[in-house]
Amino acid sequence: MLYLIGLGLSDETDITVKGLAIVKKASRVYLEAYTSILLVDKSILEQYYGREVIIADREMVESASDDILHDAQNVDVAFLVVGDPFGATTHTDLVLRARSLNIPISTVPNASIMSAIGATGLQLYNFGQTVSMVFFTDTWKPASFYDRIRENRSIGLHTLILLDIKVKEQSLENMARGRRVYEEPRYMTVGQCATQMLEIEEVKRGEGQDQAGVFTEESLAVGVARVGGSTEKFVSGTLKQLCDADEELGGPLHSLVLLGRRTHELESDYVREFAVDKEGWDMIWKRDYAAQQ
Amino acid sequence: MLYLIGLGLSDETDITVKGLAIVKKASRVYLEAYTSILLVDKSILEQYYGREVIIADREMVESASDDILHDAQNVDVAFLVVGDPFGATTHTDLVLRARSLNIPISTVPNASIMSAIGATGLQLYNFGQTVSMVFFTDTWKPASFYDRIRENRSIGLHTLILLDIKVKEQSLENMARGRRVYEEPRYMTVGQCATQMLEIEEVKRGEGQDQAGVFTEESLAVGVARVGGSTEKFVSGTLKQLCDADEELGGPLHSLVLLGRRTHELESDYVREFAVDKEGWDMIWKRDYAAQQ
Repeated sequence: MLYLIGLGLSDETDITVKGLAIVKKASRVYLEAYTSILLVDKSILEQYYGREVIIADREMVESASDDILHDAQNVDVAFLVVGDPFGATTHTDLVLRARSLNIPISTVPNASIMSAIGATGLQLYNFGQTVSMVFFTDTWKPASFYDRIRENRSIGLHTLILLDIKVKEQSLENMARGRRVYEEPRYMTVGQCATQMLEIEEVKRGEGQDQAGVFTEESLAVGVARVGGSTEKFVSGTLKQLCDADEELGGPLHSLVLLGRRTHELESDYVREFAVDKEGWDMIWKRDYAAQQ
Repeated sequence: MLYLIGLGLSDETDITVKGLAIVKKASRVYLEAYTSILLVDKSILEQYYGREVIIADREMVESASDDILHDAQNVDVAFLVVGDPFGATTHTDLVLRARSLNIPISTVPNASIMSAIGATGLQLYNFGQTVSMVFFTDTWKPASFYDRIRENRSIGLHTLILLDIKVKEQSLENMARGRRVYEEPRYMTVGQCATQMLEIEEVKRGEGQDQAGVFTEESLAVGVARVGGSTEKFVSGTLKQLCDADEELGGPLHSLVLLGRRTHELESDYVREFAVDKEGWDMIWKRDYAAQQ
């Protein structure tokens, strides 16, 4: 049996009782470690499970999935995923491959950022599609997120923006020389995301008014850090204010929610508690959001 | 401290290790039992926790929340919620009330249907806003879900439809006579939901072509039952086919996903495995979905 087991969002105790029992008796235990991370190290998981944990990086999952699935017709293989097992496309591939090998599959769900984001007080019912933000480079500033947010905002919905993480990345030089030397992991912050959003808004404005205006420096948003963990932190404010909120938010992982105009008053009541500037929040909320109900 | 603890979706072992430790040591343990249900009885939870569990019905949570919060400045109160604690609006109210009483709050996230629905193989990134379907009566057939689905479909997105549950409902006669006699619980099925959807589509068509056409009998959808449990079941097909899928799906809880046109081929590959009629699925998918990418 192939077990896909969600680990939740924060530490080793966020696994479910059901999931832990399976991990303890599986023949092999893999940890998917490139679409997200827990806030604790692998060694802590190994100690907690009393088991060796094999790190499954992108290359292994995408190119060597048959190693992971080896003999899973006869023995139990646990594949651990931070959050919920179906948060990322890659795992759908793995299941399709297992199906084609007649390997039975079982899933143990867990908290995902896509539902845990409800802890902001924004109603999950009012979220549109989720988008991803990647690290911009000097020459690569993909703006497809902008059109997705436009779609969500055109029908009044909030947008959850998931932020890039870079683990086990090689520099161009090391890659060219075939050196297996990896850069330090990087995790995008709320400040970086808000800055990139405003940068693209600026670019779009340069292309003409009809292309632009999906959001502005005064659009309301919530920056979140380490959702579901004991050091969970929320900071709400304008996109401009969130550009400078990283210190208050602290370490990774960060996400950002851009509010839609169909915001309920109860949602604003809840979220203003985290505002950088409560009076400013109330003023903008009344002017740009409450009036649009 | 007020602890809001998610129980996940299926049975007593879907609680996280962290959540279970809190339940075992809390002074009082409440179970919210009206927005969703676990697939096991309260007595099983009590035995598993070794604790008395107090059922918190809608009336208690909405009108007597101060009883729940009593002395939570000094002792630990665990408030258990099926799924994730922030799935339903009611719990936001409870937290706002706790805040106003200066009670510290901690949340233990868990799987929610809103993320676990990824187990269908449909990508969570491609979902728009979630909608609810209530039981129609002869005189009350609310159709606001229809406009929400229209919005989602206008931008190509899937829609998760959560189905009504009726627990602790009184008949009009018993209510009028003040008798505390309650009806048997009712859980809406995928078949009932699909039938109501097509009924409203028919009504809208009567109002004119420009009002209608959000979906048809041939729109593709996935019916799901008991997601995340050992008897989890998926049936995919047209809305017309899903009207008759209840027997195959089995007991509660059910949900339904209506596909958006921006469906990726990998999603269709995954979902067709559950199709009532695979050839019919492929034909409609190619004709109405793949061509719209």
